[in-house]
Amino acid sequence: MENALTILGSSSALPTSQRFSTAQVLQMLGRFFLIDCGEGTQIQLRRCSIPFTRIQAIFISHLHGDHYLGIFGVLSSFNLLGRRTPLTIYAPKGFENIVNFQLKYLVTELSFKVTFIELTQNGMSCIYSDKKIDVYSISLDHRLPTWGFYFKEKAKDYKISKKIIEKYSLSIAQIVLIKKGEDLVLANGEVIPNSLLTIFPESPKSYAYISDTLFKPQIAEYIKDVTLLYHESTFSHEMLKRAKETFHSTAKQAAEFANFANAEKLLLGHFSARYKTTVDLEKEAKEIFSNTVAVNDLDIYSF
Amino acid sequence: MENALTILGSSSALPTSQRFSTAQVLQMLGRFFLIDCGEGTQIQLRRCSIPFTRIQAIFISHLHGDHYLGIFGVLSSFNLLGRRTPLTIYAPKGFENIVNFQLKYLVTELSFKVTFIELTQNGMSCIYSDKKIDVYSISLDHRLPTWGFYFKEKAKDYKISKKIIEKYSLSIAQIVLIKKGEDLVLANGEVIPNSLLTIFPESPKSYAYISDTLFKPQIAEYIKDVTLLYHESTFSHEMLKRAKETFHSTAKQAAEFANFANAEKLLLGHFSARYKTTVDLEKEAKEIFSNTVAVNDLDIYSF
Repeated sequence: MENALTILGSSSALPTSQRFSTAQVLQMLGRFFLIDCGEGTQIQLRRCSIPFTRIQAIFISHLHGDHYLGIFGVLSSFNLLGRRTPLTIYAPKGFENIVNFQLKYLVTELSFKVTFIELTQNGMSCIYSDKKIDVYSISLDHRLPTWGFYFKEKAKDYKISKKIIEKYSLSIAQIVLIKKGEDLVLANGEVIPNSLLTIFPESPKSYAYISDTLFKPQIAEYIKDVTLLYHESTFSHEMLKRAKETFHSTAKQAAEFANFANAEKLLLGHFSARYKTTVDLEKEAKEIFSNTVAVNDLDIYSF
Repeated sequence: MENALTILGSSSALPTSQRFSTAQVLQMLGRFFLIDCGEGTQIQLRRCSIPFTRIQAIFISHLHGDHYLGIFGVLSSFNLLGRRTPLTIYAPKGFENIVNFQLKYLVTELSFKVTFIELTQNGMSCIYSDKKIDVYSISLDHRLPTWGFYFKEKAKDYKISKKIIEKYSLSIAQIVLIKKGEDLVLANGEVIPNSLLTIFPESPKSYAYISDTLFKPQIAEYIKDVTLLYHESTFSHEMLKRAKETFHSTAKQAAEFANFANAEKLLLGHFSARYKTTVDLEKEAKEIFSNTVAVNDLDIYSF
């Protein structure tokens, strides 16, 4: 199953006629995660035909309005659509209070259970894990407590071809062990090394979302070799002073970060409303890290 | 100066890929009023190039999320844009609390003064009046306290042509009196009747916004001869039962209401997300009231 990131919104504090506030949907190994939830998220979700009810978790990076004001509409519409699937919301301290206060006015009782998980850890911390995926929070450096998120497939099992299974008449128990990396011992005592039995699995794919932050290259280490990297790029580098004052990054810094992280591909977003086009921002980053794209709303990036 | 109504959103509870939640801007004799403020209002405002800062008042019909969840983004962006002009918000009880709670998280201090006026009156009540316009609230019949709004130009003065002014060498004081309807007494005692001096003024234009409500024909009397009438039309008449259960109206009822009010033109909106097209709703209403339009987002209606 393909992984895909859909951009729902890519503006910074002020949305524009072309860009909604920040929100993204990550589809990874059949799971759907909503990352940030700016105003209008539910409208964008409808536009890109993402199945509302399959979103199992929402990750809120920080409590600036352009990253969360869509939550009320999303929850209220989940409810109107009769959602039953439980939902988990990972967010900074205070968010549960914000949501619950508003819900009092919006619904009598939600048709589904919401669990809030408070983001608290400095550095990198595993906040979600299932059979196939781990998600980590990464603390950033913004005007208020802010986290990025790192979604990583778990190491995949070795693969065995049908031909090998038939050749040695392998039992299910034997297949399981070989997939874990063990050698095969035949009835006659002969040992067939694992490398002759298996195909090396694809390396695990990963996505890192670096939300609003001052340039913080030291955290690139946490996401070394990331497949797809999104890094905020509110300003061009000639506005570095303004970027520092407002605890944001420039396109050039995002590209440097991608180099440090040895990323495969870099997405730029969270553009200041002052930029009517992002051509120059993309160009600035490409000089440092060539595989860069300045995103637009409703873009889809498969990986 | 022309009057114009811009539709920012025309869906009911669930927005669709084509329709935002309810919001409209009324431009009347140079004033800008925002009527309801569903999620995404600020994005739609940007799309139709309405000058944010010239909106002097916001009218919230009731406290269902699809009619107010855009207020946080609007206020927050007004603030980011450095607005200084005071703003008045007319809304049901509780709204000030909702807004102030959220503002604590969004801004340290607003750059402009907000005054809340609580809607409380049954029937029709004047809530705003200036030199040229009166605005009335009209209580409706929905699942929670709900009001419509009626915007009416004041009766205009009689007009006098330049030719008449020159012919009788009228002083400013005389002109003012004649414009009010008085006759002119010449120095020789001759009386020139007002009807020979003046041109009958255009009749005052008006706009009525009938928000979510059960069919309530008795209030049509309040807005007799309205120029432009918006009436919610969540359902087609074959869903009358559902309309009644949810305290909404049908397209046919909206048209009957327009007839009772002797409206010049009827706009239908607040469509249930079940309708992929509004052709049938418009047709249903037109059979009763021919000058009917089912609105789309970003439509502009001059009157």
